Amino acid sequence: MTLPARVEAALKAAIDRADTPSAPPGLIKALRYAVFPGGARVRPMLCLAVARACGDDRPEISDATAAAVELLHCASLVHDDLPCFDNAGFRRGKVSVHAAHGEPLALLAGDALIVMAFERLAVVGAAEPGRIAPLIEAIARGVGAPAGITAGQAWESESVAPLEIYHQAKTGALFVAATTSGAIAAGSDGTPWRFLGETLGAAYQVADDLMDAVQSGLCDKPVGQDALLQRPNVVAERGVQGALAKLDDLVEQAVASVPDCEGAQEMRDLVRMTAMRLAPKQLSRSAA
Amino acid sequence: MTLPARVEAALKAAIDRADTPSAPPGLIKALRYAVFPGGARVRPMLCLAVARACGDDRPEISDATAAAVELLHCASLVHDDLPCFDNAGFRRGKVSVHAAHGEPLALLAGDALIVMAFERLAVVGAAEPGRIAPLIEAIARGVGAPAGITAGQAWESESVAPLEIYHQAKTGALFVAATTSGAIAAGSDGTPWRFLGETLGAAYQVADDLMDAVQSGLCDKPVGQDALLQRPNVVAERGVQGALAKLDDLVEQAVASVPDCEGAQEMRDLVRMTAMRLAPKQLSRSAA
Repeated sequence: MTLPARVEAALKAAIDRADTPSAPPGLIKALRYAVFPGGARVRPMLCLAVARACGDDRPEISDATAAAVELLHCASLVHDDLPCFDNAGFRRGKVSVHAAHGEPLALLAGDALIVMAFERLAVVGAAEPGRIAPLIEAIARGVGAPAGITAGQAWESESVAPLEIYHQAKTGALFVAATTSGAIAAGSDGTPWRFLGETLGAAYQVADDLMDAVQSGLCDKPVGQDALLQRPNVVAERGVQGALAKLDDLVEQAVASVPDCEGAQEMRDLVRMTAMRLAPKQLSRSAA
Repeated sequence: MTLPARVEAALKAAIDRADTPSAPPGLIKALRYAVFPGGARVRPMLCLAVARACGDDRPEISDATAAAVELLHCASLVHDDLPCFDNAGFRRGKVSVHAAHGEPLALLAGDALIVMAFERLAVVGAAEPGRIAPLIEAIARGVGAPAGITAGQAWESESVAPLEIYHQAKTGALFVAATTSGAIAAGSDGTPWRFLGETLGAAYQVADDLMDAVQSGLCDKPVGQDALLQRPNVVAERGVQGALAKLDDLVEQAVASVPDCEGAQEMRDLVRMTAMRLAPKQLSRSAA
């Protein structure tokens, strides 16, 4: 099975397990709506790619780990789109979860997705009990306080937010969770994969800031949101060319950081390919 | 250390771990505000009491488990109080988290508490890897979809909600998680403790409905909320005397269900003592 097919199958298995006859139907619909169809599935693909580079000796655990990473990403999108944050009416080419299913079910769907992510790791990971604690620690660090997604989002409520710490928490932390948990899922040490996650997360954030600043109409989220909401932003700090130079630099660092292992070359190719898709199309020539 | 002191210390340890110099200060304040001072800590006390009845061979795991149960309970209260649900301005004798810290930080604090609960189980549970998966499964079942707290809350968005299923999900499921996880934390099987959680959860829900229906001014949440919000309610279904009779019956079932074990008598006493505090004071004579 291809990596994308594995990701979709693992997500489907996680949601299907919650879809029982005694479940509240509206919540289950909201859960499916929040997860399918997905975006680029960048984080779970990265997680699975690292697991494969590390030998992938327990594919079902790698799959559950990739699914957990994506479920948590989806949860953060659903909550970020709520009226008290971005108040976004659209996401991934369709109306956002709260616009389609109401605010109460959107909030609950986000909560249920967070729980489901950890439950899935436990249920599937039970076959290798020694991997569960480091897996959950690695992934929780990417989403919780003090330095995961919730912390990143919380920096937006502060009057002063240190740019690096904010970006690392809001975006980088889940990329680090994706790479390190991919290694742990395959029975390896996550630490050597940390820097890859950090640099790719930072690259992704720069690309997102560029997209937000320059794109008009091609992107599926409202343009200019960051400036509108006065969020810390790399383009505002360094200008478009400065941001592009930083993006290139981060991608090179990411490629160079891939640890020596059987699947290293394949992994480096994947990083470059993913990176090429990151920069806004209008800027891709100057970014190349 | 007494059970209440253990609960408070375990909760403090969990929150302290998130309180690092690079964490967003507002989120950390909201987390502490959401957890301290607590209510009666009924669920974590029950969890620890079961762990003790089962031998409590790893007190640090029992403590982390009790803390996880309470962190998830606190998360559900914070989210339930939000404007899109109960829009409650007060909780536990002070203004609710969103009223004190704003809606964005309240939502994020709830999310971070959910993550923290599972992270704590993994970090502390790592000493007994074989217990982590069943612990997380037991606790996730109490809060996620299809039949935990989020599902219970989601039933309120349905036009028709089956009363037993709604109550079991909204209240019973976390009581079951508390009893079964207490046993698992101590290296025992959780199954024999399931019925105790179910009956105590049901008793607690009946008591809550009674409180809501008859109390005026003694309770720390707005009175008559259930009728106002047209939620399914035992008092509306059976009347006050019918609800009181059901409460008595459930407590007797709970006491009778305590499995034979070294700490069985102490456990039965605790159940009776907790139950006595459940019924609204104005009704305690007729309920006795």
